[in-house]
Amino acid sequence: MFKLAFLSLSVVALCQFANAQTADDSLMIKKISDEVFMNGQAYNNLRYLCKKVGPRLSGSAGAALAVEQTARMLREAGADTVYLQPCMVPRWVRGEKEQGKATLSNGKFINLNIVALGNAVGTGTKGINAPIVEVKNFAELEALGKDKVKGKIVFYNYRMDPRYISTFRAYGEAGVYRSQGPSRAAALGAVGVIVRTLSPVLDDNPHTGATRYDEDKPKIPAVAISTNGAVELSGLISKGLVKNVYFRTTCQMLADVESFNVVGELRGSVHPEEVITVGGHLDSWDLAEGAHDDGTGCMQSIEIIRAFKALGIQPKRSIRAVMFMNEENGLRGGTKYAEIAKTENKKFIMAMESDAGGFTPRGFGFTSNAAQKAKILSWQPLFRPYGALEFNEGGGGADIGPLRPLGTALIGLNPDSQRYMDLHHAKTDVFEAVSERELNLGVVVMAGMIYLVSQYGF
Amino acid sequence: MFKLAFLSLSVVALCQFANAQTADDSLMIKKISDEVFMNGQAYNNLRYLCKKVGPRLSGSAGAALAVEQTARMLREAGADTVYLQPCMVPRWVRGEKEQGKATLSNGKFINLNIVALGNAVGTGTKGINAPIVEVKNFAELEALGKDKVKGKIVFYNYRMDPRYISTFRAYGEAGVYRSQGPSRAAALGAVGVIVRTLSPVLDDNPHTGATRYDEDKPKIPAVAISTNGAVELSGLISKGLVKNVYFRTTCQMLADVESFNVVGELRGSVHPEEVITVGGHLDSWDLAEGAHDDGTGCMQSIEIIRAFKALGIQPKRSIRAVMFMNEENGLRGGTKYAEIAKTENKKFIMAMESDAGGFTPRGFGFTSNAAQKAKILSWQPLFRPYGALEFNEGGGGADIGPLRPLGTALIGLNPDSQRYMDLHHAKTDVFEAVSERELNLGVVVMAGMIYLVSQYGF
Repeated sequence: MFKLAFLSLSVVALCQFANAQTADDSLMIKKISDEVFMNGQAYNNLRYLCKKVGPRLSGSAGAALAVEQTARMLREAGADTVYLQPCMVPRWVRGEKEQGKATLSNGKFINLNIVALGNAVGTGTKGINAPIVEVKNFAELEALGKDKVKGKIVFYNYRMDPRYISTFRAYGEAGVYRSQGPSRAAALGAVGVIVRTLSPVLDDNPHTGATRYDEDKPKIPAVAISTNGAVELSGLISKGLVKNVYFRTTCQMLADVESFNVVGELRGSVHPEEVITVGGHLDSWDLAEGAHDDGTGCMQSIEIIRAFKALGIQPKRSIRAVMFMNEENGLRGGTKYAEIAKTENKKFIMAMESDAGGFTPRGFGFTSNAAQKAKILSWQPLFRPYGALEFNEGGGGADIGPLRPLGTALIGLNPDSQRYMDLHHAKTDVFEAVSERELNLGVVVMAGMIYLVSQYGF
Repeated sequence: MFKLAFLSLSVVALCQFANAQTADDSLMIKKISDEVFMNGQAYNNLRYLCKKVGPRLSGSAGAALAVEQTARMLREAGADTVYLQPCMVPRWVRGEKEQGKATLSNGKFINLNIVALGNAVGTGTKGINAPIVEVKNFAELEALGKDKVKGKIVFYNYRMDPRYISTFRAYGEAGVYRSQGPSRAAALGAVGVIVRTLSPVLDDNPHTGATRYDEDKPKIPAVAISTNGAVELSGLISKGLVKNVYFRTTCQMLADVESFNVVGELRGSVHPEEVITVGGHLDSWDLAEGAHDDGTGCMQSIEIIRAFKALGIQPKRSIRAVMFMNEENGLRGGTKYAEIAKTENKKFIMAMESDAGGFTPRGFGFTSNAAQKAKILSWQPLFRPYGALEFNEGGGGADIGPLRPLGTALIGLNPDSQRYMDLHHAKTDVFEAVSERELNLGVVVMAGMIYLVSQYGF
């Protein structure tokens, strides 16, 4: 039955293109696809990165090992040159396992399933103990005012909205409580903050992620609580049963240390001075293996180099696979890359990032000028056989953003977003959560777009 | 950043439709989506089906319990009527855990990681022990001929082709070795068959699934070996190290027993005699929980009833959620449903099946007349906000296929296929492999299509 329902892929691909050049491009992308699905190394490399290197927060031993190992992978993939770009990075450490409990009016207590927010200050070894006040959003916080917030722990119980089909949209809306919540509570005299985990599902995994203190406000300790924990705590508070909340974190920000972006380059055969950048970020949060965030983006970028070399593709323009350091809590690597780019006598025509998980690709988001947009859209049919149909304006990636002032067109890979926020920044972001075929299909569409830009320029 | 990149979904949805009716439909589908994502029960019901009912091969106690429990779920979902359709089903039992080993020429042996194919005969308690002959395909088998096959175990080491983007296409091509392999080997005198597992990934999980004996050929025992096991065995054979292979299976086909399709109906308010069928199959293989195959399709179908009732939608035409029995090894339920349909004085205008996994939906495949096709395609833009862009001719589902001679239009939900074949018919097809959001998004697009057909007819 299935056999009847499908025509040969290459036949379909050929039929729908009017001119020979496009048909050639279609066949080349199919060749890349076959190479990646037959001989791809992204999945094996990801296993190594997750299981042998593991968590790799900026400044950690894991991050240093990740630099060394991805440089090796780039050499093995066949990059013409592999080098490191030094950059100073913040070094935040979690310290001892967080403790938290709510003391109830009946004298009993419940444990709180919490983790410190990244970049947060600790409570000190004695912890903090204070009455709690729950708000659903900033409007409720402001309505309470200083009188009702001062001396208390603020509990932001904002439910990430499950109605958005794009979980990134829900994340964008809910993320302000993690990033701005501590300083906004501190402005009203709060002594600590508990933020409901940014996840659309109910479970017991608290998600970390960076918070950002305003320089002119007191820096107060801040933690995330699991979604199940938030529901339970809120239920107890609404019944008036919670007397006090205690939590203890020993996290701290240490002095900056040196780290690196890792760069592997294929030299362009015709316009070596025109550079296409493709990358992901090498650092990850400390709670998990950073599989989808962003081991997959890094391994995909390396695999593009490998596939081009394996197929003997000599790109007309130079292609750089870049493992950016410190996306999670500083963006120093991306900033440094653009800073160095300004001093190079080259043209950074396009940069692509894969930092939305290694899930099945749905398309691209792009930030470009009108001529580039027209080119990108003209190539859209080439990606139909791979299910990457959604070409939308807007997007790119955090690490490549600093290149935009150089006139670089930015393209972000947009994978399906349904599963990402379930495991983002949580201990469940592990190798086992990645599908080999989804990862490889992402490589194929990324490589296809990079091939086209490398051939035709921008 | 995310906030700027997105417009409100409802604004987008409204803008792109020229007429008010379409805008109303768009808003109704958004209402359904919100209801499913806010209050959906499909995931909870699936947990129950997987963890409390578990495996449910036709004729088993699990299948009987599944009938009882899905009838309950349909009542709780608010179906106007819930009833059972009796049908006789085959009852195949696996028996004791399979044993297999290859004896090497050095006197040592390796264990073979095997499971019996569904519907297969057993070896008897003593097992079979014979020389092995490996072939990559039927051409190689035929080339060997009777002389080299007689008295031997045939090992079909066909690698499921990873180059097809649709894993169903690869499955369709490779599946013939499982379904026809035993009888074709028996025709040449083989005494047993080992088939490489139908999976695009390398791991240690053998996948079962039905084989089909030709009535005029000897029925010989047949097992599947894990993909890793196939690679290892092939390596030993190619080095000439395998002396004999032994395997033992005690599976058998017992007498037919009575089982049931489970039907829950919402009565149409204007044309109750026009019936829309939506379903999945309730039976599953015995090795796992049948989560994606096909617990998800069943739970999605029940959830459509629940969402319509919760929103107070009174469909103009009748909607039946059907849990079909015995898709895996007989199709008796689907056959019976169509048989009964012929005797009802009703018009079965459309049937939809979800039996390709509970993964993120990519679109629909449909088998219909030209007028129905035009309608379906005119609705396509309504599904853009949910990422279901791929509307292709061809497709439906095994259980609804028997309705086609009644003039029923068939529509199959097409979810992303990348992960399905990794776990299909294997012990890894469990609740934990299902994403709540992906499952719910499938419900939304299924419910949207059913809503449109129920309103406008076919």
